[in-house]
Amino acid sequence: MNVFDRAIALHEELKGKLRVENKIDIQSAEDLSLAYSPGVAAPCIKIFENPEKVYDYTIKGNTVAIVSDGSAVLGLGNIGASASIPVMEGKAMLFKRFAGLNGFPICLNTQNSEEIISIVKNIAPVFGGINLEDISSPRCFEIEERLQDIGIPVFHDDQHGTAIVVLAAIMNFCRLTGRRMEDLRVVVNGAGAAGIAISKYIGKKDLETPNQQIVKDMIVCDSVGIINKSREDLNAVKKDLLNYTNHENFSGNIFDAIRNADVFIGVSKEDLLHKEDIRTMAKDPLILALANPVPEILPEEAYQGGALVVGTGRSDFPNQVNNVLAFPGIFLGAIRARAPRITLAMKFAAAEAIANGIKDLSRDKIIPPVMDESIAPQVAEAVYNIHMKSLQLQ
Amino acid sequence: MNVFDRAIALHEELKGKLRVENKIDIQSAEDLSLAYSPGVAAPCIKIFENPEKVYDYTIKGNTVAIVSDGSAVLGLGNIGASASIPVMEGKAMLFKRFAGLNGFPICLNTQNSEEIISIVKNIAPVFGGINLEDISSPRCFEIEERLQDIGIPVFHDDQHGTAIVVLAAIMNFCRLTGRRMEDLRVVVNGAGAAGIAISKYIGKKDLETPNQQIVKDMIVCDSVGIINKSREDLNAVKKDLLNYTNHENFSGNIFDAIRNADVFIGVSKEDLLHKEDIRTMAKDPLILALANPVPEILPEEAYQGGALVVGTGRSDFPNQVNNVLAFPGIFLGAIRARAPRITLAMKFAAAEAIANGIKDLSRDKIIPPVMDESIAPQVAEAVYNIHMKSLQLQ
Repeated sequence: MNVFDRAIALHEELKGKLRVENKIDIQSAEDLSLAYSPGVAAPCIKIFENPEKVYDYTIKGNTVAIVSDGSAVLGLGNIGASASIPVMEGKAMLFKRFAGLNGFPICLNTQNSEEIISIVKNIAPVFGGINLEDISSPRCFEIEERLQDIGIPVFHDDQHGTAIVVLAAIMNFCRLTGRRMEDLRVVVNGAGAAGIAISKYIGKKDLETPNQQIVKDMIVCDSVGIINKSREDLNAVKKDLLNYTNHENFSGNIFDAIRNADVFIGVSKEDLLHKEDIRTMAKDPLILALANPVPEILPEEAYQGGALVVGTGRSDFPNQVNNVLAFPGIFLGAIRARAPRITLAMKFAAAEAIANGIKDLSRDKIIPPVMDESIAPQVAEAVYNIHMKSLQLQ
Repeated sequence: MNVFDRAIALHEELKGKLRVENKIDIQSAEDLSLAYSPGVAAPCIKIFENPEKVYDYTIKGNTVAIVSDGSAVLGLGNIGASASIPVMEGKAMLFKRFAGLNGFPICLNTQNSEEIISIVKNIAPVFGGINLEDISSPRCFEIEERLQDIGIPVFHDDQHGTAIVVLAAIMNFCRLTGRRMEDLRVVVNGAGAAGIAISKYIGKKDLETPNQQIVKDMIVCDSVGIINKSREDLNAVKKDLLNYTNHENFSGNIFDAIRNADVFIGVSKEDLLHKEDIRTMAKDPLILALANPVPEILPEEAYQGGALVVGTGRSDFPNQVNNVLAFPGIFLGAIRARAPRITLAMKFAAAEAIANGIKDLSRDKIIPPVMDESIAPQVAEAVYNIHMKSLQLQ
């Protein structure tokens, strides 16, 4: 059986990959009177009098909602709420496995952005954080942005999860080669959730993020070609890219873009590049070919073209860019710190922690392996510390 | 320590009474590839192609949302979403304990009925049923009614849970005394969620419910007094009561109402009746004094006044009317049957099953004890069978 048949068999057997369990066994009327009526009135009153107590008496302090409208699920596209549930359950499992957090899938029967924003605000009380998942671009940007002031972290993982691990990979590529991020020429191919987030992180100066490292020379391409000032088909998100990318207003296609580039980041489509294309890049480049399941170029061919380091989204090659390295620790740290949102400084700190997770840096080891359990706690600590430091500075 | 101090200590220790667990342990990249990417795409596609498969591959088939806006929590009133979470977690524990179902608290930051209706519709995909909880009257009636067509059972437990157990108590009172329900004179004191539901069940003829037993002579009182046609302060829900109660248009207070009554059902306030009042009732009456924590009259005093059978909401007296006898089994049966809603016929079947749960009927034993684990499966089976029978009749 292939992986898909095995996955079907597993899902059929389990009938849901999660279960909600009671932390104490109710065996007597006495148990019932403490966990439920009448005793439960006491913690209710305490929370009513002091809302912060909700973290002491309820699941809020260790529970994350995984919210999706099913509009952009994996590589499957707009399959809707019900069909997205297996993915959101899987995501919840990762929260538990790597950060010990409860994850619960909230799959929404609406793709109206206003409704989604309103629902997330209204279901927030029981959750310590909201992981937005598989919401289509560009709607995902507005939805996330407008939820930044609800008091708990709201984080669209498709944007930030991948971007943070990519950032860690670039940090370690610089460390390995002795280069500085600001000297790199970077091409991002794909202007969806992840492509835009990567570009923002390393290109758009955020005054509140002193540890941000800016790439001065960056080009972003979408399916039409290089994003530049002459194009009239750009949405607001893509237009904003022009404030910090493509300063020389290059035009052309992806092959024009990568000429002399040090870094190629593909969040686009399979089988796009060949070894001849890699040869047109600067010497010893970094190739992150993240299209899934088939990357923009396979590692072997990229090496033949002269790549120094290659990463993909796949577990069967070295240097897997997998957002599971980022999100469990980020939420754990942010919720522990009771941070109201996840700032860019926290994202950079998370990337640093992931990069630092590798002690013996090499071409085949610039990103820690997915199953490395030590990463999430380190990420959590870094995120926690950054938030605490920001409180001291205020 | 009293029950409230012990409850605080327990809640502080647990930091949330529930946990979400993974049904399988993720130990390898292979595990990850089946539970999550890329294998998870396969069940997603199957559900997309055949929406009913969501019951086979996800938690939907055994998960209930416990939805509250915190507007009428226990006896505490409108304490809001956050302060209501301990109650909803406790409720989730009861679903697990008695029916093996996953319960998850959804506490809403809005008390706008339209928003609540819209949110429940939109979060429905991941749940097999929706338990509405602690939503204030009369809003609870409209909210529940308008959610009856969303495809999964939506059940406001404050209305129906108590009412179903009361119905079971009346059934067994009739059995014990050889009386027929239609010959009883019943007084319901309290026209909130539970009082209205009880009155409807036993007073308002539902043509689709052949097993319904109608009480012909019933009076409902609210805090003002007997509900009758002369009153101009009645909301729509109370006005509707006049279609099937108080045919003789009595007026007066609760003491006038109970004269010659066979059954008093109090869902009102503590310490309302005294033994002299019970003496004005018909011979050998049933007193269900359900105000919590202090009943309308204590059992001992009711017996002194001539009561034959007394029930309360308390666990320290015999005949505890506790909705935990009803809701776990009702949801279990309805979800197993994939019933789109919980009909009155199913509620009557549930009450029958609870009543039949007692083999050795006596004055002190007309309602099964709360911790009797055999009740929920019997209720579930009765509810399941009624739904299956209704499908055959169509």
